[in-house]
Amino acid sequence: MRIIGEKINGTRRRVAQAIEGRNAAFIQDLAIRQVEAGAAWLDVNAGTHRSREPDDLIWLVETIQPVVEVPLCLDSANPQALAAAIPVVERTPMINSISGEPSRLKGILPLVAKHGCSVIALAMDDKEIPGTCERRMEIIRKVIEATRASGVPDGNVYLDPLVMTLAANTDSALVTLDTMRAVRRGIPDAHLTMGLSNISFGLPARSYINRAFLTLALAAGLDCAILDPLDGEMQAALVAARVVLGRDRHCLNYTRAYRAGLFNEAGAKAIYN
Amino acid sequence: MRIIGEKINGTRRRVAQAIEGRNAAFIQDLAIRQVEAGAAWLDVNAGTHRSREPDDLIWLVETIQPVVEVPLCLDSANPQALAAAIPVVERTPMINSISGEPSRLKGILPLVAKHGCSVIALAMDDKEIPGTCERRMEIIRKVIEATRASGVPDGNVYLDPLVMTLAANTDSALVTLDTMRAVRRGIPDAHLTMGLSNISFGLPARSYINRAFLTLALAAGLDCAILDPLDGEMQAALVAARVVLGRDRHCLNYTRAYRAGLFNEAGAKAIYN
Repeated sequence: MRIIGEKINGTRRRVAQAIEGRNAAFIQDLAIRQVEAGAAWLDVNAGTHRSREPDDLIWLVETIQPVVEVPLCLDSANPQALAAAIPVVERTPMINSISGEPSRLKGILPLVAKHGCSVIALAMDDKEIPGTCERRMEIIRKVIEATRASGVPDGNVYLDPLVMTLAANTDSALVTLDTMRAVRRGIPDAHLTMGLSNISFGLPARSYINRAFLTLALAAGLDCAILDPLDGEMQAALVAARVVLGRDRHCLNYTRAYRAGLFNEAGAKAIYN
Repeated sequence: MRIIGEKINGTRRRVAQAIEGRNAAFIQDLAIRQVEAGAAWLDVNAGTHRSREPDDLIWLVETIQPVVEVPLCLDSANPQALAAAIPVVERTPMINSISGEPSRLKGILPLVAKHGCSVIALAMDDKEIPGTCERRMEIIRKVIEATRASGVPDGNVYLDPLVMTLAANTDSALVTLDTMRAVRRGIPDAHLTMGLSNISFGLPARSYINRAFLTLALAAGLDCAILDPLDGEMQAALVAARVVLGRDRHCLNYTRAYRAGLFNEAGAKAIYN
């Protein structure tokens, strides 16, 4: 399971302030700490000011990449911002995201193909975020047809089955998990990713819900997740779930994480914060 | 998911002392607290002194049942002790346990049938605890043949697929989960139970492993578990897993548990104790 660190996101107030004030130290600290905590990519989102986004995204890329060695995940729906930022990125980035929306496919997929990027593809289109596994798979198949037609190999595609909060619909996790299993069966070379903490939006004591969902998602084939790598509870749940799923030989990774204090910090974290 | 409270067990030192000293208050307190925490049955194990076991089991039953209203789960491999205790039990008990061992089937199953008890049946025999799902299912099918031949309905049988520690074999949880799914497909009217904390025996920070395993076991069809109902972390994980699995309408049970402070207590519990 590889982690896309989610913290450098301009829709968060403090990050937006850092971007506006060109506070490089703040951004670099977020980058370094996420990589130290195990992030394999860093998501980079410059916020929603359309006219400023290309400049802000370039500034973020140039601020982050001198201090870390992981690739970036450029998080934008704006082809102009992506086209401006990709040339300044040193390690081939992931692009977040395309979907079944024709405008995104038309605007962003050519950039993905041209630069050999990997790409996150959402199971939604311009009409809806479907409520059923069947409809999400229809969209996913349409997107995969488009990525293949553009010459993007399935192994570069990170399918996001979408995660909606259980507070609105208690079948929400089941639909996502069913979609993941359908992807694993039908498109075995593609990866599966998601922003899993959406599952508990609006509910109290969210980390309990997030951890249960992460455990079931790993069993269903998740191999990448967009999350906060500094969340010790989540990291501890991840390490434990891998043992239970038979993916940690001799429990070595688990016992190493224990000795490093992962469970101690996680356990000490107050749930009601 | 119904819980069999595991704490009144004469193989635990303090319970053994309470039995030997006829300390009714200690036992009654354990009984009351487990029922208040949601136990649907109380396991009652008088320990391993074969000659004293019938008297001790009768004393436990007569000590516990005046203070709680849940049925008991008589935990003994000794037909003499069970035959002595069953007549003093007010509410039809569960018997823990039979297995594929001929001596247990011969000694205990007739008592189960005669008194209309429910019964826990372990997926092992006198030769082995099998390492594969296939062999465990062979034993389970043999046991179910025997219970049916004795007139015990499948709905009174609580099949225990057996839980061995991951510390000895990292495939251990997968074998148990596969066996549970095979039971659900092949013997749909039988219940599934287990002593799930065995999964983490010998590992550190056990509650993380236990909770991940509980989540996956619920998804695989577990509907009953032998556990410590006073373990807030486990109860919190159970409540959260039920939401994620779509089994908590409008998240009502979850939000009620939150307001009652379940997650607060669970979060405050030190993991390294």
